[in-house]
Amino acid sequence: MEETVPRRGRPGYDQETVLRRAIELFNRQGYDGTSVGDIARELGLSKSAIYHHVPSKEHLLSQALDEALDGLAAAVDRATTAGSDGSAYERLRHVVEESVGVLVAHQPAVTLLLRVRGNSDVELDALRRRRELDTRLAGLVREAVDEGSLRDDVAPDLVSRLLFGMVNSLVEWHRPGGLVDPQQLARSVSAVAFEGLAR
Amino acid sequence: MEETVPRRGRPGYDQETVLRRAIELFNRQGYDGTSVGDIARELGLSKSAIYHHVPSKEHLLSQALDEALDGLAAAVDRATTAGSDGSAYERLRHVVEESVGVLVAHQPAVTLLLRVRGNSDVELDALRRRRELDTRLAGLVREAVDEGSLRDDVAPDLVSRLLFGMVNSLVEWHRPGGLVDPQQLARSVSAVAFEGLAR
Repeated sequence: MEETVPRRGRPGYDQETVLRRAIELFNRQGYDGTSVGDIARELGLSKSAIYHHVPSKEHLLSQALDEALDGLAAAVDRATTAGSDGSAYERLRHVVEESVGVLVAHQPAVTLLLRVRGNSDVELDALRRRRELDTRLAGLVREAVDEGSLRDDVAPDLVSRLLFGMVNSLVEWHRPGGLVDPQQLARSVSAVAFEGLAR
Repeated sequence: MEETVPRRGRPGYDQETVLRRAIELFNRQGYDGTSVGDIARELGLSKSAIYHHVPSKEHLLSQALDEALDGLAAAVDRATTAGSDGSAYERLRHVVEESVGVLVAHQPAVTLLLRVRGNSDVELDALRRRRELDTRLAGLVREAVDEGSLRDDVAPDLVSRLLFGMVNSLVEWHRPGGLVDPQQLARSVSAVAFEGLAR
């Protein structure tokens, strides 16, 4: 219906706003459960007007997942590229803290990434990139075990999964714009993970 | 259609099998994205035959969430009921290990529980029970801080969230029937959490 109505008074949105609202909707009702019509309605746009802003729903998903993955990849790159400064232990601790930073700064996009199950090419591609980062992080954990700075009575793969399982759990309970300073949060997470809870 | 066909040759299923297959489907395609018809199809039953086994989809969800919550509640009860033996530290460590055990033994049901967002009375009820357990666990963490056995430079609420965030992350990567012995896994998780990763 609305498609035939003259476009007077239609609110203008930049791509960024459209993307933010789409990510919110994807997280709230699931990507598969969200239609382009839902995104249009959320923005008060007609379905034809929304296509003026975005080529497809999958394009929005792709942008959101890239946002999360690019931030994490940059942190992993800095920690694992040949010639990186510091011991493996220092680099691992640093990448944990940087990951917390990315997670807090891009929480909705990271939340979406962590829920991806591989139902489309875009999702499979994101899972592939995520696995690649996990593999590089597991390699860094092994390096830290080998240099003697991490406990060696727990398998490095398990260490890596528990460590980033703890980091990633933040998306379940951290409230964006909360009272905790992100740098303080990052330091607390790495203190708990590396030094342990026991006094 | 099928409803009018005589019921000859219809496979018989016990409630337990129906529940297992329903939980698998809920986890694979989401509770909201699963119809009673889907569950019937998965079992090779007609839609009328499935109602012979289960009163409603919500009833299956309720049973699944109770399964997960009852196991966790029993562990928390043992650790927090007045007169429990041992220091708060020992009881907390024990409840962490028992939680890993429940998670591994009831992984599909716990996975479902952790994804619940509160879209129905059954889900809201499960979220309420989960919050209650979280509150009691956070209380036990505070008790352990007060007795001087846990680090006090990180807020007890944050400690509690990171600790159980790590435990709960198991549902994301643990493969049921894998090579890791559940008791060994529980000990590794609590060693990493309480003693830390650093050597």
